[in-house]
Amino acid sequence: MPSLEEVEVAPPRTHEVRVKIVATGICGTDNHVRAGFFPDIDYPVIAGHEAAGIVESVGPEVTYVKPGDKVIPLCVPQCGECASCLNPKTNCCLKGHICESQNLMPDKTSRFTCKGKQVYHFLWTSTFSEYTVMPEASIAKIDNAAPLEKVCLFGCGFSTGYGAAINTAKVEPGSTCAIFGLGGVGLSVIMGCKTAGASRIIGIDINKEKFAKAKELGATECISPNDFNKPIEKVLVEMTGLGVDYSFEVIGRIDTEIAALASSRLGSGTCVLVGAPPSGSELTFDPKLVLTGRKLIGSFLGGWKLKEALPKLVSDYLNKKCNPDALISHTLPFEKIAEGFELLHTGKSIRCVLLF
Amino acid sequence: MPSLEEVEVAPPRTHEVRVKIVATGICGTDNHVRAGFFPDIDYPVIAGHEAAGIVESVGPEVTYVKPGDKVIPLCVPQCGECASCLNPKTNCCLKGHICESQNLMPDKTSRFTCKGKQVYHFLWTSTFSEYTVMPEASIAKIDNAAPLEKVCLFGCGFSTGYGAAINTAKVEPGSTCAIFGLGGVGLSVIMGCKTAGASRIIGIDINKEKFAKAKELGATECISPNDFNKPIEKVLVEMTGLGVDYSFEVIGRIDTEIAALASSRLGSGTCVLVGAPPSGSELTFDPKLVLTGRKLIGSFLGGWKLKEALPKLVSDYLNKKCNPDALISHTLPFEKIAEGFELLHTGKSIRCVLLF
Repeated sequence: MPSLEEVEVAPPRTHEVRVKIVATGICGTDNHVRAGFFPDIDYPVIAGHEAAGIVESVGPEVTYVKPGDKVIPLCVPQCGECASCLNPKTNCCLKGHICESQNLMPDKTSRFTCKGKQVYHFLWTSTFSEYTVMPEASIAKIDNAAPLEKVCLFGCGFSTGYGAAINTAKVEPGSTCAIFGLGGVGLSVIMGCKTAGASRIIGIDINKEKFAKAKELGATECISPNDFNKPIEKVLVEMTGLGVDYSFEVIGRIDTEIAALASSRLGSGTCVLVGAPPSGSELTFDPKLVLTGRKLIGSFLGGWKLKEALPKLVSDYLNKKCNPDALISHTLPFEKIAEGFELLHTGKSIRCVLLF
Repeated sequence: MPSLEEVEVAPPRTHEVRVKIVATGICGTDNHVRAGFFPDIDYPVIAGHEAAGIVESVGPEVTYVKPGDKVIPLCVPQCGECASCLNPKTNCCLKGHICESQNLMPDKTSRFTCKGKQVYHFLWTSTFSEYTVMPEASIAKIDNAAPLEKVCLFGCGFSTGYGAAINTAKVEPGSTCAIFGLGGVGLSVIMGCKTAGASRIIGIDINKEKFAKAKELGATECISPNDFNKPIEKVLVEMTGLGVDYSFEVIGRIDTEIAALASSRLGSGTCVLVGAPPSGSELTFDPKLVLTGRKLIGSFLGGWKLKEALPKLVSDYLNKKCNPDALISHTLPFEKIAEGFELLHTGKSIRCVLLF
């Protein structure tokens, strides 16, 4: 069971940084950690990965930041040295959790103890803690003018969705898009599609209470699969003639992944998987869907090389070129984290931001 | 059971062309028709779709060709008017078999009769016939200098494989490629990868007798899954560090489709499906393969808009820029078609071309 505890946060070691977290969002992934959905997480663990804070101290050999700098923790590191970091086509840093456990710091020890007992890190971020220690590779330095209680969403949700449209799908002006799932990430996909100049943006969710916000942010229409007595992919193909140019699955369910693929246009449609289904899930479909010209692609954290990208995204935010503020439906003091998770479970929040 | 029969070939109707077939290859797809693998084919049928011939007569309103012109039948039409033909991103003409049956001509009648009984068309090509009738949308006029007994391969096999590398994957110079299946189409993928400047081209087949030809055409190495006691995708990942930049499945088997996807590079690899598995097949894999940045895409007839592309490809052939000649392992008179299929079944032929 989750609990609120006093922990000791050891000083940063070589190439590490200790950060005072100012604001941290609650993302579905944190809920998965809480629920034990990830078999490769060690417990007890401090979750949290969508945050912003201020450097409190730096370990030896850190040159990238100094105490007082504002930073965003990176839930995918950018070490700058591995084959992925050196490859302009991918942001899957080999130091990240896809390849190696991030339950301990790179030197295989933890900086957290609680009542003398070791507590594990999560993604090297562990932002559900007033102080956290991260490798230098796992932080991005941002403009000190940035409001941390807002830009924390660049750490995961907003960047993931916005980048899925902009970077991964490379949505083209005038195109037709369908977004399955209108939570915080799905809404960010909508914002990305709108920025990219899509002319038709169809939001899909079984919870119609989400439609108003989706339309406010750029959806041109919203539909619920429950309102039709045929599969939603058929509905979308009928609405668009041959299917949508770009479909996005932002739920992490196998059935909606297949529906998203089947909704994409014969011959040229692109289906982007964004949501991560539970471990061990299997996607099953007729390969003809792909053989007839559809593309199935995945978006990993919006395709951003985060250390490079976040400072620019925050700049764009300060220059009013993108705006995740609308995603923040609730702000609570950190002590009310349980209430924040409850808002997530009941679908009442888009993003709940916790403030220390 | 297949049989050799005298058929009557009616004159071409409006917008139709009657062609004297000079040369026709035997493709695996024809074998699938022969074996009854396609549930939407009507029998009795005249198969055959990879051919070249000479216009014998034209129906009313045909302006594109005149008697005496050399042509290649198109196994995917290019009507020039449908949403796909008007979309530069796809060659999936909506008049083709993906959307509509091509077992009868567009006016829903057949031009073939045998002993007074109607015989069905196949893909509007039916090139296993000395004369065949096709809609104008289903032929490409080529340079009259072209040797028909060679350029017939542009009608399917060569174009499918070569285009999968050049058009669909858009293989980049210096990249690493893996080709599953070293039949005629797989060898054409190798030629495409080589033309595109790939630096490492790995051929994969359980029949090692195919390795010499693969290397002659551009493979830098060839391996057999039978020589390893671990999955071939692991072998390929170990050979290349993180997987290949481009993998191609040219067999049409679910297990090799999954292996090809898993062989492609973490974060940026592209897996191109070329081979068509039997109807009703289902592809099952862990969506994490895609969520971590791999792309699964399909190549439909090499991505070529055939009516436009084939004249240019034949020009390239005449200018020695591409050369499918090496694929022709056997040439037989048409009467020996059964022997040609036997060569295919026993894996002894790459492509057997039948001459009238």
